[in-house]
Amino acid sequence: MKLKIIIALASLWLSFTALAHDKHKSDEWRTLDANKTVLLTLPHGKVVIELAPQFSPKHVEQFIKLTKSGHYDGNKFYRVIDGFVAQGGPEDGSTADKSVSILKIEGDFTTDENWHFTKIQDNDLFAEQTGFKDGFPIGHNLSEKRAWLTHCPGVIAMARGNEPDSGTSHFYIVNGQAPRYLDRIMTIFGRVVYGMNNVQAITRTSAIEGEAPVDKKDYTPMISMQMMSDVPKEQQILLQIENTEHSAYSEMIVKRKKRENAFFYKKPPPILDVCQTPVKTRFVK
Amino acid sequence: MKLKIIIALASLWLSFTALAHDKHKSDEWRTLDANKTVLLTLPHGKVVIELAPQFSPKHVEQFIKLTKSGHYDGNKFYRVIDGFVAQGGPEDGSTADKSVSILKIEGDFTTDENWHFTKIQDNDLFAEQTGFKDGFPIGHNLSEKRAWLTHCPGVIAMARGNEPDSGTSHFYIVNGQAPRYLDRIMTIFGRVVYGMNNVQAITRTSAIEGEAPVDKKDYTPMISMQMMSDVPKEQQILLQIENTEHSAYSEMIVKRKKRENAFFYKKPPPILDVCQTPVKTRFVK
Repeated sequence: MKLKIIIALASLWLSFTALAHDKHKSDEWRTLDANKTVLLTLPHGKVVIELAPQFSPKHVEQFIKLTKSGHYDGNKFYRVIDGFVAQGGPEDGSTADKSVSILKIEGDFTTDENWHFTKIQDNDLFAEQTGFKDGFPIGHNLSEKRAWLTHCPGVIAMARGNEPDSGTSHFYIVNGQAPRYLDRIMTIFGRVVYGMNNVQAITRTSAIEGEAPVDKKDYTPMISMQMMSDVPKEQQILLQIENTEHSAYSEMIVKRKKRENAFFYKKPPPILDVCQTPVKTRFVK
Repeated sequence: MKLKIIIALASLWLSFTALAHDKHKSDEWRTLDANKTVLLTLPHGKVVIELAPQFSPKHVEQFIKLTKSGHYDGNKFYRVIDGFVAQGGPEDGSTADKSVSILKIEGDFTTDENWHFTKIQDNDLFAEQTGFKDGFPIGHNLSEKRAWLTHCPGVIAMARGNEPDSGTSHFYIVNGQAPRYLDRIMTIFGRVVYGMNNVQAITRTSAIEGEAPVDKKDYTPMISMQMMSDVPKEQQILLQIENTEHSAYSEMIVKRKKRENAFFYKKPPPILDVCQTPVKTRFVK
């Protein structure tokens, strides 16, 4: 009798774990919401940006409104510095430029004991902890109960003047080693999830000392900026992103720290730079 | 009498400091040695690489020999991963590939109390100290008396198999967030000092899941790899590099940590990432 119960329980347990395992598998990737995804078309290729309304609601709201109104179509990348940022927006002082509302900075946010993220590292150079939430790179200072999106390559943030609350529509995409000193004093509101090679191919506008300046007519234009949901179905790029909240992602992180591949004949320190830790993208089949 | 001596001494001191000041000014930049500088010509532009024989003598010796023999001319960048590296070399298993001598790794080196570098940061994620020597980014563990060139964007290093002493001629240039976990287990032997935008425009060979693979015929070739000293005078690119041993550079570092510009309405932590700290290049007038 006792044995039968054990067998019954064991088989119940097996079917549960089988189900759990299937569930588990299917959740390793999440499909991007076309209403929170932007398609930037450049002369040389496409770029897909996932917006982050959960972290920077007002900036995303304004960016979507501007995108839908065609504000960015034909704008140029006018400040492009290799290893730093590609910045673009409407012509300074133009009607389009002056018509945009001024935004309040959304540089960091308060966390409480219920707040959770996938931690990958303690004692980062610029944060007490780093990790990911919803695929976005995060810095977190537990002592302050504050967290923020970090300036990793590929993040998109609003440019501003000297005042914290002075961002409008001019934005930059980080194209080089993470300028983490800008964390918390700028508003990051999304990240490039596809086509970073096309961001890297945007014409640099800054010349070095002694070099001829770049002609403005050679600046890279934005052919168009569209919400993915407004793109005709057959031209949409449908993507899935690794689910950084899934146990499979945490397992990858643990493995990555160990560097068990035979290539590592001598083990590096078991440390991860949040900006050098991949969150993969794939095409929806 | 006493006063006259003071005046004489003062005027002597003034002329000395004037001289010292001029000397100081002229040493803020150093001119690249054409015998240690490489010109890589890509279909879309030029790249200049400064070699580091002072850190990786055997690798530089072999790289110069190969460059002079035309080994790299027509080679392709066959492993190009956005945000990681652009790797190139001869076709695997070709006569050229098999003819190259195997190198002993030069991943780090011993320092003593007389060894000096321009320190910029303590307690970096991957090193006890970081800084620069001769314009190259350096990691240093005082406790071990070992230092090394760090994997910042733009450094060139030799690829290898699983064995430490297995590098030949295949090399990579870091094109994304510094993969510092490769520090000390790879041999960095130079860095890009001009044309990093052209490195960034090398065709990526890696496709994401669900994407069509990149056709091998689209891989970016190296039109030529030449020692700058072998390039006809009128086609040479003559560059100067900020002298990281000069007090002006140290002063820039101190200033950079302080972030006194009005843009920083809230000061970031006074921390520098060695891979996000610029060493400028300019054209020789």
